[in-house]
Amino acid sequence: MQRVLRSRVMPAGAQPWPTTFFVDGTRGELADPVAIEDPLEIQLAFGEATPTQLAVTLRTPGHDRELAAGLLYAEGIVEDAADLAAVDEVAAGEAPGSRVVARLHTRRGNAAAANPRPFLSTAACGLCGKASVDAVFASGFPTLPAGPRLTLPLLLDLPRRMAPAQELFAATGGIHAAALFAADGEMLLSREDVGRHNAVDKVVGALLLAGRLPAGETILAVSGRIGFEIVQKALRAGIPILAAVGAPSTLALRLAARAGMTVVGFVRDGRCNVYCGAERIVG
Amino acid sequence: MQRVLRSRVMPAGAQPWPTTFFVDGTRGELADPVAIEDPLEIQLAFGEATPTQLAVTLRTPGHDRELAAGLLYAEGIVEDAADLAAVDEVAAGEAPGSRVVARLHTRRGNAAAANPRPFLSTAACGLCGKASVDAVFASGFPTLPAGPRLTLPLLLDLPRRMAPAQELFAATGGIHAAALFAADGEMLLSREDVGRHNAVDKVVGALLLAGRLPAGETILAVSGRIGFEIVQKALRAGIPILAAVGAPSTLALRLAARAGMTVVGFVRDGRCNVYCGAERIVG
Repeated sequence: MQRVLRSRVMPAGAQPWPTTFFVDGTRGELADPVAIEDPLEIQLAFGEATPTQLAVTLRTPGHDRELAAGLLYAEGIVEDAADLAAVDEVAAGEAPGSRVVARLHTRRGNAAAANPRPFLSTAACGLCGKASVDAVFASGFPTLPAGPRLTLPLLLDLPRRMAPAQELFAATGGIHAAALFAADGEMLLSREDVGRHNAVDKVVGALLLAGRLPAGETILAVSGRIGFEIVQKALRAGIPILAAVGAPSTLALRLAARAGMTVVGFVRDGRCNVYCGAERIVG
Repeated sequence: MQRVLRSRVMPAGAQPWPTTFFVDGTRGELADPVAIEDPLEIQLAFGEATPTQLAVTLRTPGHDRELAAGLLYAEGIVEDAADLAAVDEVAAGEAPGSRVVARLHTRRGNAAAANPRPFLSTAACGLCGKASVDAVFASGFPTLPAGPRLTLPLLLDLPRRMAPAQELFAATGGIHAAALFAADGEMLLSREDVGRHNAVDKVVGALLLAGRLPAGETILAVSGRIGFEIVQKALRAGIPILAAVGAPSTLALRLAARAGMTVVGFVRDGRCNVYCGAERIVG
C-alpha cells in the first residue's frame, strides 16, 4: 500500500511492484509493497508410500509446515502431533519450498485419514506461480480490447456509484460486492455475497446467461481485495479493467500484467494505485 | 452490524441475530442483521444423464443460477450460454433451493467439460446449513471449557495488541492476521496470510506441531470476518473465544452457538457485538 509520507519497508511476504499512484490530483511512481500470493501443494503419504496430492492452496509463503499441519487437523486427517511421522518442505521442480509432504504413521484407523478427500483446489497450479499463470493462458480467454479509456475522476467515483447497490453491506457490514460498469460510468449490474469469488461469479454468470460475454467494454469494481482468482474470472469474461477498494496480490498482478489488464487498487478517499495497464486511465 | 442511531433494515440475504452490544461503556441488546451464509451444491449432467456433484460452495442465497453459471464458465466447463441446456434450482431434501443442476448438451468436445474436476469443496455439507453444522459435530472436537473469562476492556484492546505483529499488513494493506492470546491478554502467537483461513490454519498448525492442542484457555483474534470455516477451525482447536474486527455470518453463529463458543464481532473503535457466549465476557 502506497504511503506517501512513510519510508517503504519490505518484509518477508511482500514484494515491490512498480506502481503509478494518484493522490490529491498528483501523479507519482513508487515501488509498492504487495502481499505475496503463491500456490502451495500439500501431499499426503502413509508410512513409506509415494505421496499423493491432497490440496493446492494459494497462500503467503512462510510457516508452510504449520499451514499444512493446520489444514490436516481441521480436516480431521490428523488428531494430534503423534499422528504425523513427518511434515517436510520439499522442492517441487523449479519452485523450491512450494510443496509440503506430510507423512502419517500407518497405524491410525481414522476414517478421514484413510480416505482423505481432495479438499482444496483452486484455479492455481500446484507447482508455482508461473505455472499457475501459464495454466490460465493455456486454458484460454478472450483478447482484451485496447479500450475502454477511463478518466481518473470517474475511476475514483466508482465506490460511490457502487454504494446504493450494497444494500446487504449497509445492513450487515459483512459482505462483498462486485459491480459491472459501462465505460461511461453507468452501473450495469451488481451482486453481493459473503464470498468475494461468488460475487464475481454471479456477475459473470449473469452476463453468460444473458449472452453478453465477452464483456470487453466494461469495468469490474470489487469491494475487497484482488487475488489471483478474481483476475482469472475477470479475464475469462474479457473484462479489461478491474478496480478494487482493497489491495492486490503479487500473483494477481503477474497474471493481469501478462494479459494486458488494467488493475487499480485502493480506490478510496480520492486516491488510487494503478498497478498495471495504466494506459487505459486518461485525463 | 449494529448501528445505534439507525432503524434496522432486514434485506433478503440477512437474518436478525440476538446480540449484546457494548458501546461507550453502555450495554444493550438488539436483533443485529447478519449476512446469510449457506451451502450451495452444484451438480453437473450431460444430456439426460444423472447429475453428479461438481462443487459445494458457501454463499449468500440469491442469484444461485448465475453463481453456478459463472463458476462453470470460470472453470472452462462451458464456453458460452449455448453450451448450457438448462440451469435449474432444485430442492435438495429439506433444503429447497440449495442445489443447482446444470445440464450441458452432449455435443461439446471441451476437455474441461468432459472431465470436470471437483473444484470447490468446503467444510460445509452440500445439503443445507443444518447438515453442515451436524457434520462438524459428527466429526468431533474438544469440549470447550467454561473459561476463560475476558473483561470488556481487554476484549476491546485485542486489535491494538495484535497490531505490532501485523507487519505485512502495515506494509501492504492487503493481508489477514490471526493471533492467539492467553486469558491475561498476552499474545502467544500470530500469523499473517492473504487467505483468512490460512492465517488460522497456521496458528492451529503451530499449536499442533508444538503439542499444545486443545488450546482451551485461549482467545483467537482475527483481522477479518468470521465465516463458518473459521469457527470450525477454532472449534477443532478447542478455542472457546473468537473475536474479530469484522462481521460474522449466520452459519458461523449457528455452529458457534450450538458448540457453546463465544463469538464477538466488530471489535473496533471501542465497541463490539457479542453474538453468542456472552457469559465469558465479564466486568
